[in-house]
Amino acid sequence: MTQLVNALVQELRERELLLPIWGEGEKVVLLDQTRLPFKTVYLEIYTVVELCTAIKDMTIRGSGALGLAGAWGAYLASLKNDNLEAFQRDLAALKATRPTAVNLAKTVDEIGTDLDPRQFKEQVVQRLIDIVHRQLNFELALGEAGAALIHDGDTIMTHCHSGALAGAGYGGRALSVIRRAWEQGKKISVLVNETRPYLQGARITAWELKRLGIPFTLITDNMSGFCLEKGMVNLVVVGSDRVARNGDLANKIGTYLHALAAYDNNVPFYTATSSHTIDLNTPSGDTIPVEMRPAEEVLTLAGQPIAEPGTKALYPAFDITPHRLITGIITEKGVIYPPFEKNLVEIFG
Amino acid sequence: MTQLVNALVQELRERELLLPIWGEGEKVVLLDQTRLPFKTVYLEIYTVVELCTAIKDMTIRGSGALGLAGAWGAYLASLKNDNLEAFQRDLAALKATRPTAVNLAKTVDEIGTDLDPRQFKEQVVQRLIDIVHRQLNFELALGEAGAALIHDGDTIMTHCHSGALAGAGYGGRALSVIRRAWEQGKKISVLVNETRPYLQGARITAWELKRLGIPFTLITDNMSGFCLEKGMVNLVVVGSDRVARNGDLANKIGTYLHALAAYDNNVPFYTATSSHTIDLNTPSGDTIPVEMRPAEEVLTLAGQPIAEPGTKALYPAFDITPHRLITGIITEKGVIYPPFEKNLVEIFG
Repeated sequence: MTQLVNALVQELRERELLLPIWGEGEKVVLLDQTRLPFKTVYLEIYTVVELCTAIKDMTIRGSGALGLAGAWGAYLASLKNDNLEAFQRDLAALKATRPTAVNLAKTVDEIGTDLDPRQFKEQVVQRLIDIVHRQLNFELALGEAGAALIHDGDTIMTHCHSGALAGAGYGGRALSVIRRAWEQGKKISVLVNETRPYLQGARITAWELKRLGIPFTLITDNMSGFCLEKGMVNLVVVGSDRVARNGDLANKIGTYLHALAAYDNNVPFYTATSSHTIDLNTPSGDTIPVEMRPAEEVLTLAGQPIAEPGTKALYPAFDITPHRLITGIITEKGVIYPPFEKNLVEIFG
Repeated sequence: MTQLVNALVQELRERELLLPIWGEGEKVVLLDQTRLPFKTVYLEIYTVVELCTAIKDMTIRGSGALGLAGAWGAYLASLKNDNLEAFQRDLAALKATRPTAVNLAKTVDEIGTDLDPRQFKEQVVQRLIDIVHRQLNFELALGEAGAALIHDGDTIMTHCHSGALAGAGYGGRALSVIRRAWEQGKKISVLVNETRPYLQGARITAWELKRLGIPFTLITDNMSGFCLEKGMVNLVVVGSDRVARNGDLANKIGTYLHALAAYDNNVPFYTATSSHTIDLNTPSGDTIPVEMRPAEEVLTLAGQPIAEPGTKALYPAFDITPHRLITGIITEKGVIYPPFEKNLVEIFG
């Protein structure tokens, strides 16, 4: 089994990926995303307990990468447990780390269901390999669909981080589109919104673009409107937390503002998403509850306060971009255009 | 003369102002705005050379406050120089500190023109007193005009810092409107955009509101759209760098985004400005050149680096908000509504 895993990791290495997580013999290795961009720290994880801590600490994050963390966690659990029931208890612990991470739970369930007690270890490895390949194929298909929208010489704006480290290492979602266009030889550049409060754009998107060699410029979130009104942007592409049936988009806080500015300047605005993120049971963005996070992140940066002690602050984690501002929804099955409700139901219903 | 100045300062103290600058005997005292909100540091300035350095270092900033810095600088110069020509050389040095600060130059010119060599010191003190009173009366009139737009229970969003420390200490521009409404007994609260990159909202606007006892909540700039789309804001009021003849507004970077989000949610959007900031010679925002500042401030937050060394960044200091997004222009002569070009020319032409 270790040989199969070694062959998988060898293949991943040859594909020039920015891997968020992979296996090495008896251990799993994680790139600590909380330390980027200043420190490139790899965590060596030997037990499921350690992996659970790493997931809770946001060392690894993003829907695709969390699915892979679940799959690699199952692999670790299979190495340590000869008993299927004990193995299943480890899987339950993995799922409990981030209750709102749908893809983590889904992947752990997929890998843990209908296992044969006598050969579950072999089954887990095979399923791990399938899951990694499936995520990579998804990113390549998404990138191919979206890259067709990008022209030689374009400047593309993106918000937050929707990239390789949130997926299987090719480019996740929004950055798969950008990476594929770059690989097609298009001379593009990227405008990266820093994305306060957590600065995922400045810290992680910029880190990935630098490693891919794609030229980029960093701006504060306040500057997107200026860049759009001065004609400096040809296309905006962002990720998505959830797409409602009518095409309304829940995504990282600020997305709505940048979509407004794109619309006001006739710049096409796309979300790169997965068919699994399109939720046909949610009629519109109005009914999506917005997670409110602790205000401390607004008031600090890397432990540094930016306001007086005792200041009241608010931290909504995402906002809703109405479908009327969205040009198209890029999926692994192609780009969906308005009328979104009709077309989403037709293709994904 | 010192007695006249002492009487002026005594009067200012009794008016419960947040003073950016004042005189004490042979010296001028400045609140160091670069240290806010964590340190309340007062700089004691004895010479025009020291004051020039303080102005260059952005210790004092904002159009109204820079005018006052020029007037207090002239007072300092009059104390040190018995010769009018030497005095005028000091004034020239003051003007040269911030060549783009129109109000600094204008005030220094006003105080330095048509002086009598035998009694210029008395003239300078009288002009200083007039200038301080005029600025305060402006803030009170502006506040009165704007406060009528605010209702009991309203939440008001503001961007950047357009407050007391940028003026003569009452409330500058946008905060004069808010302060006056609060003094009228309206139970209001304020939503403060932190205003990256320089964080004037988090650092200075929040500091002033806290001292005035007006409740406020801090958000990152990315969050204004969420707050507006959730109906949490009744009115937006911001300052202005320049208003063009057609009503287009040049103001701190990000203003355009927040105006778009206000417009999209039918929330009234106002700028609080002075008749001197309305530039009837500029036909529209298209012709206003946008100052590009050093990118370093984008790459750091509260002194901490936020991106890898060598990252390319952009820092436009302001953006243009088209007049179609603006509900009204609050001035010391009342609120101007569309059609702006017709009404601005009629009132200020």
